[in-house]
Amino acid sequence: MKIIVIGASGTIGQAVVKQLTDRHEVISVGKTTGQFQADITDINSVRALFEQVDKVDAVVATAGTAHFGPLQEMTPEQFRVGLSDKLMGQVNLALVAQHLLNDGGSITLTSGSLSEHPVRMGANASTVNAAIDGYVRAAAIELPRGIRINAVSPTILEESLASYGSLFYGFEAVPAKRVALAYSRSVEGAQTGQIYKVW
Amino acid sequence: MKIIVIGASGTIGQAVVKQLTDRHEVISVGKTTGQFQADITDINSVRALFEQVDKVDAVVATAGTAHFGPLQEMTPEQFRVGLSDKLMGQVNLALVAQHLLNDGGSITLTSGSLSEHPVRMGANASTVNAAIDGYVRAAAIELPRGIRINAVSPTILEESLASYGSLFYGFEAVPAKRVALAYSRSVEGAQTGQIYKVW
Repeated sequence: MKIIVIGASGTIGQAVVKQLTDRHEVISVGKTTGQFQADITDINSVRALFEQVDKVDAVVATAGTAHFGPLQEMTPEQFRVGLSDKLMGQVNLALVAQHLLNDGGSITLTSGSLSEHPVRMGANASTVNAAIDGYVRAAAIELPRGIRINAVSPTILEESLASYGSLFYGFEAVPAKRVALAYSRSVEGAQTGQIYKVW
Repeated sequence: MKIIVIGASGTIGQAVVKQLTDRHEVISVGKTTGQFQADITDINSVRALFEQVDKVDAVVATAGTAHFGPLQEMTPEQFRVGLSDKLMGQVNLALVAQHLLNDGGSITLTSGSLSEHPVRMGANASTVNAAIDGYVRAAAIELPRGIRINAVSPTILEESLASYGSLFYGFEAVPAKRVALAYSRSVEGAQTGQIYKVW
């Protein structure tokens, strides 16, 4: 398969590339790094990416940020960060991919365990992650030509404990390598509309 | 209790007002109707409402729209309708209410069964409803002064079958009167972070 990995330079992205690269042609994409550059928060940038990388079988998104901060100080503008970046970026990707992927192709998005297990300062991320899961369940029943869509919902990564660990005391961290298996299940399996929880 | 109902002229809003009005002081709010007017998609309008209606114990939102249409034709702009209206409106309401409600007050939002049970043309609403549920779970653990937050997640209403029924064949419709009970449980009960599913 020819597989695009968006956010390939990130912790999860690197592990996904490593997991898939022996068996497939993997195209690494980043905002400023990788073989191709794209900003998926701009749907025209997503379209341009698919034009450059022709005949794609699967696309994986491991990119996107949300706002972290206390709810009591949160502004609508801060809240929109996650909606515009992590949510709309991945929504855009699927809106374009449904038309340009090969028949039987797959779309794999990234949500996260905060959807169900909130932490302090994580209201924006909880909202966005739950939204992505809802989007995947709904998009799955409308995609044409046998195209599938799933989300991987990881908990805190071992590799991210240094930066985010203080928000996740008591959570069992998982290595990115284990999270990458869920992307493999989505891309190389046959299910659709699934949320692969890695926690 | 003094209770603000936003969207009071809608099908659910009317039933909620009817359910609560014998036991409480209910303030009806709409964009253009009701005792007070507010547009909750504008956080300043929410603030102005709380200044006008002083010393509020509970606020209920039954307002908000999402985009309905085929996924294959959906644009980012259409997708943002639900994010800006049904989602950010209710997010704004809680961001303001956490500071201005009386101690021990409550916030009750409205999501919907499409979060878990998608239908064709409903991808935007599924996303938004799931997002609201995620927001409620997360906000509940950060609210100060004993303030609570819950969501009511109704399925298709009997009263809405004429307009939306063709999207929901096979779904068991519920009367708005039954949905209104869930708002009562949220406002008059003691739980927080709950999604009251009425389906």
